[in-house]
Amino acid sequence: MRKTITAGVIGAGRMGKIHIENVLCRIPDLKLKMVADINIDEKLKKWAYEIGVPKLTVDANEIINDSELNAIIIASSTNTHAKFIQEAARAKKDIFCEKPIDTDLKRIKETLEIVKREGVKLMIGFNRRFDRNFQRVREMVTSGQIGTPYIVKVTARDPALPPIEYIKTSGGMLFDMTIHDWDMARFQVGSEIEEVYTKGAVLVDPKIGKAGDIDTAVVILKFENGVIGMIDNSRQAVYGYDQRVEVFGSKGCAIAENEQLNTVRLYTAEKIKEDNIPYFFLQRYMDSYAAELQDFLECLQNNREPSPNGEDGLRNVVLAVAAQKSYEENRPVKISEIVI
Amino acid sequence: MRKTITAGVIGAGRMGKIHIENVLCRIPDLKLKMVADINIDEKLKKWAYEIGVPKLTVDANEIINDSELNAIIIASSTNTHAKFIQEAARAKKDIFCEKPIDTDLKRIKETLEIVKREGVKLMIGFNRRFDRNFQRVREMVTSGQIGTPYIVKVTARDPALPPIEYIKTSGGMLFDMTIHDWDMARFQVGSEIEEVYTKGAVLVDPKIGKAGDIDTAVVILKFENGVIGMIDNSRQAVYGYDQRVEVFGSKGCAIAENEQLNTVRLYTAEKIKEDNIPYFFLQRYMDSYAAELQDFLECLQNNREPSPNGEDGLRNVVLAVAAQKSYEENRPVKISEIVI
Amino acid sequence: MRKTITAGVIGAGRMGKIHIENVLCRIPDLKLKMVADINIDEKLKKWAYEIGVPKLTVDANEIINDSELNAIIIASSTNTHAKFIQEAARAKKDIFCEKPIDTDLKRIKETLEIVKREGVKLMIGFNRRFDRNFQRVREMVTSGQIGTPYIVKVTARDPALPPIEYIKTSGGMLFDMTIHDWDMARFQVGSEIEEVYTKGAVLVDPKIGKAGDIDTAVVILKFENGVIGMIDNSRQAVYGYDQRVEVFGSKGCAIAENEQLNTVRLYTAEKIKEDNIPYFFLQRYMDSYAAELQDFLECLQNNREPSPNGEDGLRNVVLAVAAQKSYEENRPVKISEIVI
Amino acid sequence: MRKTITAGVIGAGRMGKIHIENVLCRIPDLKLKMVADINIDEKLKKWAYEIGVPKLTVDANEIINDSELNAIIIASSTNTHAKFIQEAARAKKDIFCEKPIDTDLKRIKETLEIVKREGVKLMIGFNRRFDRNFQRVREMVTSGQIGTPYIVKVTARDPALPPIEYIKTSGGMLFDMTIHDWDMARFQVGSEIEEVYTKGAVLVDPKIGKAGDIDTAVVILKFENGVIGMIDNSRQAVYGYDQRVEVFGSKGCAIAENEQLNTVRLYTAEKIKEDNIPYFFLQRYMDSYAAELQDFLECLQNNREPSPNGEDGLRNVVLAVAAQKSYEENRPVKISEIVI
Repeated sequence: MRKTITAGVIGAGRMGKIHIENVLCRIPDLKLKMVADINIDEKLKKWAYEIGVPKLTVDANEIINDSELNAIIIASSTNTHAKFIQEAARAKKDIFCEKPIDTDLKRIKETLEIVKREGVKLMIGFNRRFDRNFQRVREMVTSGQIGTPYIVKVTARDPALPPIEYIKTSGGMLFDMTIHDWDMARFQVGSEIEEVYTKGAVLVDPKIGKAGDIDTAVVILKFENGVIGMIDNSRQAVYGYDQRVEVFGSKGCAIAENEQLNTVRLYTAEKIKEDNIPYFFLQRYMDSYAAELQDFLECLQNNREPSPNGEDGLRNVVLAVAAQKSYEENRPVKISEIVI
Repeated sequence: MRKTITAGVIGAGRMGKIHIENVLCRIPDLKLKMVADINIDEKLKKWAYEIGVPKLTVDANEIINDSELNAIIIASSTNTHAKFIQEAARAKKDIFCEKPIDTDLKRIKETLEIVKREGVKLMIGFNRRFDRNFQRVREMVTSGQIGTPYIVKVTARDPALPPIEYIKTSGGMLFDMTIHDWDMARFQVGSEIEEVYTKGAVLVDPKIGKAGDIDTAVVILKFENGVIGMIDNSRQAVYGYDQRVEVFGSKGCAIAENEQLNTVRLYTAEKIKEDNIPYFFLQRYMDSYAAELQDFLECLQNNREPSPNGEDGLRNVVLAVAAQKSYEENRPVKISEIVI
Repeated sequence: MRKTITAGVIGAGRMGKIHIENVLCRIPDLKLKMVADINIDEKLKKWAYEIGVPKLTVDANEIINDSELNAIIIASSTNTHAKFIQEAARAKKDIFCEKPIDTDLKRIKETLEIVKREGVKLMIGFNRRFDRNFQRVREMVTSGQIGTPYIVKVTARDPALPPIEYIKTSGGMLFDMTIHDWDMARFQVGSEIEEVYTKGAVLVDPKIGKAGDIDTAVVILKFENGVIGMIDNSRQAVYGYDQRVEVFGSKGCAIAENEQLNTVRLYTAEKIKEDNIPYFFLQRYMDSYAAELQDFLECLQNNREPSPNGEDGLRNVVLAVAAQKSYEENRPVKISEIVI
Repeated sequence: MRKTITAGVIGAGRMGKIHIENVLCRIPDLKLKMVADINIDEKLKKWAYEIGVPKLTVDANEIINDSELNAIIIASSTNTHAKFIQEAARAKKDIFCEKPIDTDLKRIKETLEIVKREGVKLMIGFNRRFDRNFQRVREMVTSGQIGTPYIVKVTARDPALPPIEYIKTSGGMLFDMTIHDWDMARFQVGSEIEEVYTKGAVLVDPKIGKAGDIDTAVVILKFENGVIGMIDNSRQAVYGYDQRVEVFGSKGCAIAENEQLNTVRLYTAEKIKEDNIPYFFLQRYMDSYAAELQDFLECLQNNREPSPNGEDGLRNVVLAVAAQKSYEENRPVKISEIVI
């Protein structure tokens, strides 16, 4: 018999709400007992009532200390992730946490050590691994349909510039955006990256340059198993959220194209037209958020190590640090140069 | 402010469960109060508990007579549809009913008269009108992007033969399968059909012929506004649930292709391969079931006549009768020949 | 060793020029000795000189009576086809003739009898059989990849209305346009048509109706082997020359989509755009004209019966007659009703 | 009136034959007078006779010194290109020469100086600029449809390993294969490259490594106008000749997908299948060879500077030298480091 897992959610912001809805509506074996948020207003109360949240609290400790709970889903602000992971681990709860664990490598490492010592499970929310298309590419790689991988390519372009304020606190494009792409590259290749080279530029908006960041980047990755990777990123693709993955190998090539809003083609005297690709991550990846929580549940039910786990969370940040160094020094940087 | 509608559901079989899940999880303004089913076993009780059904009853009258309810969703067996519509109408409830209203034209007509007299709303579950692709084609037609329509084409092929028992009671392929297609053709063209010609055959399995039905059919439709329509049907497309629509007109052509399971293309030494189209209607049309209930809700909230309504339900059955006659007599049949 | 064939061409109009260029430039084993045309002006002389036509004559008899010639390519006006076929056959030349042989069934029959009696080969220019896409579909049918065929669908829409004068002399749409489509349907299915039903309309331009023709038609075909066929035609598809074929069977479905002018997709803020399909038959089928002549050559070299042959030419006209009758009487017409 | 140009061809190997056939059959205003080849055997004589070559000679000087000739097409072995360009320039002939001019930068420079001094035109055979797809992308860039370019991506993968002997003499993959790709990148962006970074690997076959070359490479390009470029190459894509180009900019993204052998899709119980992409350059680029010669002709007729010209030929080799240096030293290399 499947084991029912009871969970609490810390943080009811945009991502927290998505997780709560998924737990309530799409994952029957994952039971929601409680949601904690430091800002409980009338709007949140109404939403919680309508969707069927059993209990709301301002105190995350109520969740951490509830002996009925098996699992905690952390979707609070980034600077509280490490703290709540540590507390949840000490309370012997299995943990799902939004990315990133933290922006400080040392703090991430310390947090992972506690998780390890306490013997609890930790999954980090790199949800794109659960996208139906990228997952299908991965299956083609692992089943040998493309043979030995040679080159992996990831294209990820956001539809519109984030607020400059966001850029200032996120660590920059290589930390808040590209981080998904080396997770994807690592996921597809199944090997670790040993060297990165970043070529970045400010092409979209000079304000981003003034804020100390870049808005366009290509990164070359060298993997331990010899595979070469390429990532290209832009902060602004006016046609939507461009998300593609390609793995080329000795027996073939698997290419995940963008999703489209519908399958209709309009033939006119002038052109053949199709509607655009999804606007942004909420439209494109909604199903993947449910799929990752479902997988988290099954990890707990079957005592399986989650993937992506805490180690993935750490490595992806290390890669951001190396890529940033490469950009600043305009040279390939070995990951081994990054000392935690 | 949006008006909240409180509903009861009669019938908790396959389609009933889909509607109940949609009401509970995807349509917050439509409140579920009660579900009636004549067979309540432990399995149904467990499912109802887990999904959050407030109350289960074996007595549909509890729903029909509940003064708190504004709307009733009927998903019971076909032979009870007309009865429940009539009772619900008399109880002044707005009604969503699965197709078909009945297989007997006279009984449908009588039922619609009661609905009209009682002044309640009635939507019939021709869900394909709410498919994102077919809806987009319709928008292109109404917005004039394809100009004046000349030809409408509907392809609908099921993935596998139904049980012979089903064929015997459904009225046959033109009644249980093609009925969706003239609804689709009528929806796209926005005009009524005045003549049909059916060419049917038993090509898939002689057992179907022995049961008095056909398994392959093409139908030509002549619309009142001059448009010509074509439908092609098969009971068995081994590659999945083939569902395509095309509207060709003076300024262009809108074609809704099949959905695919993912966007991945695998290039190999031998071929380029893609995963198949969705297997059947549950995979393909799941979102459309939520969309139709959402639209039903908005009809009630905004006092708008539902579409497809009872009249559509009637006409689609009339067309089945005419198409069957055309097949049997191998000649074009005017719809006006069918006397109700 | 391959046998070299020496040919003469009668008629140097649009189609004649295409055949001459193909013989000269693309089919080295087919030697051109002479071209006859009743109108030799300076422009034609210049063209012939530049392309390398060895000899021009106004007298087709020079070609028919030249003992060095093995084959004659007839591309003169339709009303001379039968005459030249008969003369060439009597002169023991193998013949390639543009479609149609004639518009009069009796005259076609009489011509084919002469061809048969003289024992020469006759290929009729239904070039679409040699289109790379439709040929690939046929290979999939004959190799069993789609299993037993159930339904064949042909879409053929011209980009723009022909001159009304042309319509008056061509015999009408079912004779000058649809004729290609039953050839295609017969080619794909590999069986003969036994019944047709035509639904035609004047939707594009009332002038066509006044000239006694239709501009829009759908036709249902019943084949001797049980397959059902569907054709849809329009005189005016503003987006180009719409040419598609589909064969659906017990093991799958082969669909030949339109060619496009290039493979480029433009992603913009508003839409995804692609350039159109080819404008008309010269753009779409140019390669097929060379392929059909190449095949004609190989038929002569290897003493193989041409396909499409004279019998195909006859049957396609018979089908036009039956389809016209069906349209006029609004009923299915058996091909056996057409007495030659 | 258009000016007729009379040309001679030096070299009747594989590429020479293609150019000769195009001149004879597809470019009527370009007249062929003579072909020179150092190896004239019976097979070549027969081919020349059948295709209509007016004269064959073993002595290239006959072509260079023929006062009737306006233009010389050089398709001899690479090590003779510079010599023949110089001689043809001194004889005041306009020149079309296959790539590369030479592998030695100094010799290229010296050759271009002579071309300049003699005032003749020189086009270099980077034929991919004339591919219908890549040309369409370029039009979208120049017409502003993608806005300001940000990123250009070129994918070029050969179907199978060349003979090891070829690799030893070609200068290696970056010289014989990637050279096309920076020409394509430069063509699309319309700006010069100022820095390259190459990551190469031997992944396909260790024999290539032993011969001192690589078989897999990705290159990042930095353009003077700020655009970033990415190239990925492999010596062996088992699924065919993978040739794609993408230009991403402020207003959109133009993507040229691979051509396919036909437009047929086969739907089966297992997969949707399409036939492969063209096998290699002869299949994919045949039309572009005719288009480049046509453009060369028009350059001479209209006194327009050819593009790609000698300077392009030089720059592309300089880029190969820089890319090779980058690979060997694993660092970004400025083009200005390469001293000719």
